[in-house]
Amino acid sequence: MSLINKQKQVDDWVQQFDPSYWPPLEKMARLTEEVGELAREINHRYGTKKKKDSEDKQEVADELIDILFTLICIANDEDINLEKAWQKMVEEKMQKRDINRWKKKDNFQK
Amino acid sequence: MSLINKQKQVDDWVQQFDPSYWPPLEKMARLTEEVGELAREINHRYGTKKKKDSEDKQEVADELIDILFTLICIANDEDINLEKAWQKMVEEKMQKRDINRWKKKDNFQK
Amino acid sequence: MSLINKQKQVDDWVQQFDPSYWPPLEKMARLTEEVGELAREINHRYGTKKKKDSEDKQEVADELIDILFTLICIANDEDINLEKAWQKMVEEKMQKRDINRWKKKDNFQK
Amino acid sequence: MSLINKQKQVDDWVQQFDPSYWPPLEKMARLTEEVGELAREINHRYGTKKKKDSEDKQEVADELIDILFTLICIANDEDINLEKAWQKMVEEKMQKRDINRWKKKDNFQK
Repeated sequence: MSLINKQKQVDDWVQQFDPSYWPPLEKMARLTEEVGELAREINHRYGTKKKKDSEDKQEVADELIDILFTLICIANDEDINLEKAWQKMVEEKMQKRDINRWKKKDNFQK
Repeated sequence: MSLINKQKQVDDWVQQFDPSYWPPLEKMARLTEEVGELAREINHRYGTKKKKDSEDKQEVADELIDILFTLICIANDEDINLEKAWQKMVEEKMQKRDINRWKKKDNFQK
Repeated sequence: MSLINKQKQVDDWVQQFDPSYWPPLEKMARLTEEVGELAREINHRYGTKKKKDSEDKQEVADELIDILFTLICIANDEDINLEKAWQKMVEEKMQKRDINRWKKKDNFQK
Repeated sequence: MSLINKQKQVDDWVQQFDPSYWPPLEKMARLTEEVGELAREINHRYGTKKKKDSEDKQEVADELIDILFTLICIANDEDINLEKAWQKMVEEKMQKRDINRWKKKDNFQK
């Protein structure tokens, strides 16, 4: 399922509610909250204060998706096509600005 | 293009480099940095300290994609399938936990 | 109690433990987590998804202090004197760069 | 200089301007932006993408203070006494909840 389909799926769902999208600065604060939850999981998984829980990877996945959901809400409310924006990033950064930004692997062949 | 394809596209690109993915806590810090850049744009666009610049919407789009790129790097390095994780969120949250979480529009009909 | 005294108080406390300070990128992730918790409280207090709880102001205070505690840990581990750094900011920003940055109140007299 | 004095110093300065404090969600977004800037410096200093710059420590200090300034603005606008809130944290967390939270150093004597 493409990002556009996900944007549509989220929009259909959000449009049920009144109000539908939260105001921009609230969505931003929500994103900050979700990123904080991911940070906690990453610290649990890789930091000094390790959790034993084997569920960590799923929790990381859940947090990533909560962030993605919030990104999509921001994009929808701004009428941003994420697929086009992704393509722009690929062309401008991955294929141009950053193409030699880091050391290449010795054996790398495209 | 699906999220899986984007995960593959990013992986092909990152695998050129040595080191390829940054360590988890560095990717996390990078995500925090990118979210901060989005916050600045959202404040420019909706806050008291408004910028005149008509480019703002594109800048919001660019920042969203930078965040998405970092999310995908985290997912790839953790071997997380974002498409499956999205589907889990849809089933557990959108279709179950949150289905009546907020006030529905009076005229809403599915 | 000055910031220097707080830095000393935190250092005395942290030095009990082994390891004492977490590595820098873990402290950074912890800060991100604490900022996310503040964002949640701010959204509860000022956003659409309002909580009724009258405890909110105390919770905001608690989150601010958790952030301050983490800032102090970062400063201590980097051997940064926050009092001097504050004074530098006052002189360079408050008294110089930003002195006319925003509209002054009509009736403002220093 | 105590935190209370810093709160007063910031308040005197902010009260010159019209509007004085930004709305809560804008201050929150500003905090997120400042934390992102610290994350960038921490990655520069400790991450794979190291900068050579010897100025890094000062930059970390500057970012910590920008965060502290924003915390103080949030506290002031909420009429929160940070000194009291700090003391509450010391009593409830440092002296109680967390007193045996981590492994003590073998040779630690209070």
